[in-house]
Amino acid sequence: MASEQVKVVTFWASPYGLRAEFALTAKGVPYQRLLEVDHWHNKSKILVESNPIPVLLHNGKPLPESLLIIEYVDEVWPSPDGKHLLPPDPYDRAMARFWFDFAEKKLNKALKSILFKKGDVQNAAVEEALRCISTLEGVLEKASSSKDAPFFGGDHIGMVDCVLGPFSLWFPAYEIIGDFKFELQEKYPHMHTWYQALRTSSVAACIPDSDKLLEFILGLRKVLCRE
Amino acid sequence: MASEQVKVVTFWASPYGLRAEFALTAKGVPYQRLLEVDHWHNKSKILVESNPIPVLLHNGKPLPESLLIIEYVDEVWPSPDGKHLLPPDPYDRAMARFWFDFAEKKLNKALKSILFKKGDVQNAAVEEALRCISTLEGVLEKASSSKDAPFFGGDHIGMVDCVLGPFSLWFPAYEIIGDFKFELQEKYPHMHTWYQALRTSSVAACIPDSDKLLEFILGLRKVLCRE
Repeated sequence: MASEQVKVVTFWASPYGLRAEFALTAKGVPYQRLLEVDHWHNKSKILVESNPIPVLLHNGKPLPESLLIIEYVDEVWPSPDGKHLLPPDPYDRAMARFWFDFAEKKLNKALKSILFKKGDVQNAAVEEALRCISTLEGVLEKASSSKDAPFFGGDHIGMVDCVLGPFSLWFPAYEIIGDFKFELQEKYPHMHTWYQALRTSSVAACIPDSDKLLEFILGLRKVLCRE
Repeated sequence: MASEQVKVVTFWASPYGLRAEFALTAKGVPYQRLLEVDHWHNKSKILVESNPIPVLLHNGKPLPESLLIIEYVDEVWPSPDGKHLLPPDPYDRAMARFWFDFAEKKLNKALKSILFKKGDVQNAAVEEALRCISTLEGVLEKASSSKDAPFFGGDHIGMVDCVLGPFSLWFPAYEIIGDFKFELQEKYPHMHTWYQALRTSSVAACIPDSDKLLEFILGLRKVLCRE
């Protein structure tokens, strides 16, 4: 596959773009990043939300939507260690898809409200986000059997890790903006172990500088939360 | 697989339940329907929307969410004619997932607003639904090469057909409630051919009586649209 061209159109801080990068990195696929300039601070919220990032370009063929990209990457490229992002058993695959759907619809919705809202709506979103974390703690407790298997994918990065991992990079910013603490170490030990393990795993190379990311998100909050 | 137990918990009029039934029927999998009683007329809109229908029970293992069920059915059971709900090529698979995502997020959202809203909001939803149909006409024009291949899956029922087909059963009701016409025959010839072909295909056996369905939906509108 020496002549293969794999590119990701993304923005450095985008959690959706990082999902694609996590998937490619976990499967050991070399790729080129095509970075968009920062339009997030200069455009409306609607444009930010409708912006098609990431786009995977595989030998020139474009594929949008981070979740589609993760499944595509898993289907196209063999893993160096024979491990896939989605488990081999159809029922386990369905459950992995169920949990990334949960992360997308429930957790992501709550996190967006923390970022963009204020007052009671924001407070309710904080409560909802913590309920989601509690649910995911239960899922992780079953999936991660030991310290050597700390991921939703068990002993290796799986699809749910690719979806949730990038959200977790924004946790410190959500804590400041929503004036709360996730308290992973104190209350959600499996989520805490997962959070730490992700940062020393193969995908750590994709993770942007935490100070730079925090500064970016706090700036984004100022621009987009005007109500 | 003689000892295999396949059951679908559904409600006879549910388009989501029919997705699961379409998928099982298209793959030639015998199944038992476990019909819920009609709680739609007696409960709140929130309960209707959060109601976990359908649920697939495969040898006792429960799987919710129609889209997860379709992929699961396609992965577990071989097709009698060797044809799958999802195409074999990873890029084509990603595109099929893209279009059912479109149907779910864009078309479904518009159709729900036609059903539950009135006035300007409903009128805008009608416009949006017709824009979606126009987009899907373009997709179908590429996918269905001839009268022998009228489906989104080409010459056989595919995943996008399983997702969109059940919505199409509600089209006559949407036309009455929204006071408009889809005009498939006049304006969207590929959608019209698809609409007809679905009703004479293998999945036709799952389709409920059209008069009974229309009466049910008009009754539902009266109960749920009170604003």
